[in-house]
Amino acid sequence: MKKAYIGKAMDIEPITYDDGIKVKKAHKRVLIGNKLGAPNFVMRLFTLEKDGYSPRHSHNWEHEVFVLKGKLEVFDGEKYVVAEEGDFVFVPPNVEHQFKNINDGESQFICVIPKSGGE
Amino acid sequence: MKKAYIGKAMDIEPITYDDGIKVKKAHKRVLIGNKLGAPNFVMRLFTLEKDGYSPRHSHNWEHEVFVLKGKLEVFDGEKYVVAEEGDFVFVPPNVEHQFKNINDGESQFICVIPKSGGE
Repeated sequence: MKKAYIGKAMDIEPITYDDGIKVKKAHKRVLIGNKLGAPNFVMRLFTLEKDGYSPRHSHNWEHEVFVLKGKLEVFDGEKYVVAEEGDFVFVPPNVEHQFKNINDGESQFICVIPKSGGE
Repeated sequence: MKKAYIGKAMDIEPITYDDGIKVKKAHKRVLIGNKLGAPNFVMRLFTLEKDGYSPRHSHNWEHEVFVLKGKLEVFDGEKYVVAEEGDFVFVPPNVEHQFKNINDGESQFICVIPKSGGE
């Protein structure tokens, strides 16, 4: 690609994750990934609806997160810590983590992963 | 590191770039980089003051950008295109690019690069 690509995040069709147990009311939008030819890492935007959460799990790749909106409880491997708009979160590889929305409305965050972690 | 790290972006000391010609009123905060042991890519937050801009240049690594606040003119390799809050920008390697703040106040964006691009 010879040009930069500019897009609107909310125009991307979300993928919804909700089994009512491990993950709830979570929506993922892949902003910059395989489709655009991202060479090394993938930028995703997550929206957690009120009472939504991501699974508590770990894997051998990192997360680099920036909170865009709302208020989250983040499991940091040992305990839950609050993260809100303007905060960043670094989850190193193999650290157990979870993002729980504790906002009255939705919360949103950017989450970047290496391509080895999928999209 | 065995735990996730949560920090406030605005607590990070910015590095200012301003030679009055190529780059003007631009402030960079490295949120997640070498200091935290980021393995593959670096998350930075840029603030451009009113009338501020980044240099028009190219390099052999990509940018993955998310606009947090304000309104920018982005050189996409051929022309200037507007990007505003909620938009993302993918600048592939070796594409000439520039970010110009055209907001009345400051503009802010997240910019992720591979570690090969420095911090």
